Amino acid sequence: MIVEKILLPVIDELAQVEERLFHEIGGKVELIADITRYVLKSGGKRIRPTLLLLSAKLCGYRGGSRNIALAVVAEYMHAATLIHDDIIDNADKRRGLPSVNRIWGPQVSVLAGDFLYARSLQILVADGDVSVMQAFADATVRMTEGEVGEVQRAGDLDLTYDEYLEIIVSKTGTLMSAACKAGALIAAAPAEAVAALTEFGLNLGVGFQLVDDALDFAAKEDRLGKPVGNDFKEGKVTFPVFHVLRAGSDADRKRLRELAAKESIGEAELAEVKEMVERHGAVAATMERVRTYLDQAKASLVIFPDSAAKRSLVSMVDFVRDRDW
Amino acid sequence: MIVEKILLPVIDELAQVEERLFHEIGGKVELIADITRYVLKSGGKRIRPTLLLLSAKLCGYRGGSRNIALAVVAEYMHAATLIHDDIIDNADKRRGLPSVNRIWGPQVSVLAGDFLYARSLQILVADGDVSVMQAFADATVRMTEGEVGEVQRAGDLDLTYDEYLEIIVSKTGTLMSAACKAGALIAAAPAEAVAALTEFGLNLGVGFQLVDDALDFAAKEDRLGKPVGNDFKEGKVTFPVFHVLRAGSDADRKRLRELAAKESIGEAELAEVKEMVERHGAVAATMERVRTYLDQAKASLVIFPDSAAKRSLVSMVDFVRDRDW
Repeated sequence: MIVEKILLPVIDELAQVEERLFHEIGGKVELIADITRYVLKSGGKRIRPTLLLLSAKLCGYRGGSRNIALAVVAEYMHAATLIHDDIIDNADKRRGLPSVNRIWGPQVSVLAGDFLYARSLQILVADGDVSVMQAFADATVRMTEGEVGEVQRAGDLDLTYDEYLEIIVSKTGTLMSAACKAGALIAAAPAEAVAALTEFGLNLGVGFQLVDDALDFAAKEDRLGKPVGNDFKEGKVTFPVFHVLRAGSDADRKRLRELAAKESIGEAELAEVKEMVERHGAVAATMERVRTYLDQAKASLVIFPDSAAKRSLVSMVDFVRDRDW
Repeated sequence: MIVEKILLPVIDELAQVEERLFHEIGGKVELIADITRYVLKSGGKRIRPTLLLLSAKLCGYRGGSRNIALAVVAEYMHAATLIHDDIIDNADKRRGLPSVNRIWGPQVSVLAGDFLYARSLQILVADGDVSVMQAFADATVRMTEGEVGEVQRAGDLDLTYDEYLEIIVSKTGTLMSAACKAGALIAAAPAEAVAALTEFGLNLGVGFQLVDDALDFAAKEDRLGKPVGNDFKEGKVTFPVFHVLRAGSDADRKRLRELAAKESIGEAELAEVKEMVERHGAVAATMERVRTYLDQAKASLVIFPDSAAKRSLVSMVDFVRDRDW
């Protein structure tokens, strides 16, 4: 869970979201309910619901329960991508627990993700606001495009930084951005405020993903819930690897390309990659880039007067930077 | 393609749909475009778009291009379920060609299906009609529930006829029903007409699926594009199997249960099942049941005055009954 201080302005709403998350699944198909509960219960920091609720509060949303319903949509869409991602990555673990794919197999995992998308669509329709639907629809298309881009370019060290950025903006930035935007929209915020929060969510998301990249090499397995160096093993080109390609010697570059071209790499080879990452300070360089995006995120908030919600959003930026999970 | 006579009243619109189907994919992510083109080009009778266009025409829809956009949604959603179904069934073939899952693998197949759902949502949002969105959203949820129900009850011969019916209504009936309903809605048809077409699509869909069940035992592989008896091999309990359970001897029932309980069954065992199906006239019994649903479908159309669109919908019912693919 996110530190309590951040959650304080929306603590009651988050409790309602938590209840609704389990309630909205329905009990018609036990298997789906079981899987969804498993995914929702196995950790998850409810970052997207929190962003939506704080953005709504920041813009003066009062009364009604649209914030709750849409926060559920944000988390369902996120959960759906996680379930489908684990099929894509053929992942054994997620947040330190066996993945849905591992327990139930790809067949059922496909359907569980589809169900969560479908329920999200139903909730969006019941909410009935086309501009909110648009925000989530656009995010879904871009998330999928980002995922495919990543699969398509796996192991490709010729990826440019812009191409890499496009992938992580799509994969992680767009849904956080949509959550913030939806919060502003339901509060009937002025266009400038909607744009500022849309931008805030996007930069926060990119920062978040870059921290993920850094953690893949810097974190301990028991904190991360997955093996260190996992991204590289899966052929994902992350920012620390980019840094080595740029900062490294010709020999480093050559060796990195050889390793990336392999079908699979073992522990000794992964240790080589880690050594290059350490020698070139690639984790620190990644965190330097993180700072740029998170500073931009904070800058988007200057147009809002001081409030508890604003202070929480600012703290959330710091929280994303300092996280070790 | 459906016989030309049926298509005649909407032949221009169908040509536009065909163009839009390929145009709307966009070219941002080549891999998705390739897969979607492959699925859309490899046969497919455009039944759902045709139903939507004919329903709209029957209710007097004129001008605008909402019919085209929503017909694309109906086909995209159908294509998305096909792609994900092939992962679920681990199918090698679809319509006689290698399945997407076979060519590109489950990872990319998951994403291609997700992309088509996401694009559908975007098109629905751009159309902006909440009642139409609702029809498709409800269909998506029920389709997923139906699929999960089927996976959950695979090989279970204790499934009741009502449970079996619920699965095929969800799997096949709801999207055809939504397509017909959407056509009526965009024509601003009176509630009675909307209800009649919703009902029409549902019964047509159930009839369609029951014909599928019959064809699994009756068709020739080269017409069907997949091996005969495939459903039973995959543990799917279809109507002909139900019939044998009801009409067969105790020995037949016992043997069928033994075979259904097996992890996998070979050609000799499949031949036993086919023999029982033939001996008890299970295909004819299934077609008898088909008649009931298709008669109900036709009965829903009585409230509409004669028109070319109405005659086409009636012919479509006969076409579904007589199909051998």
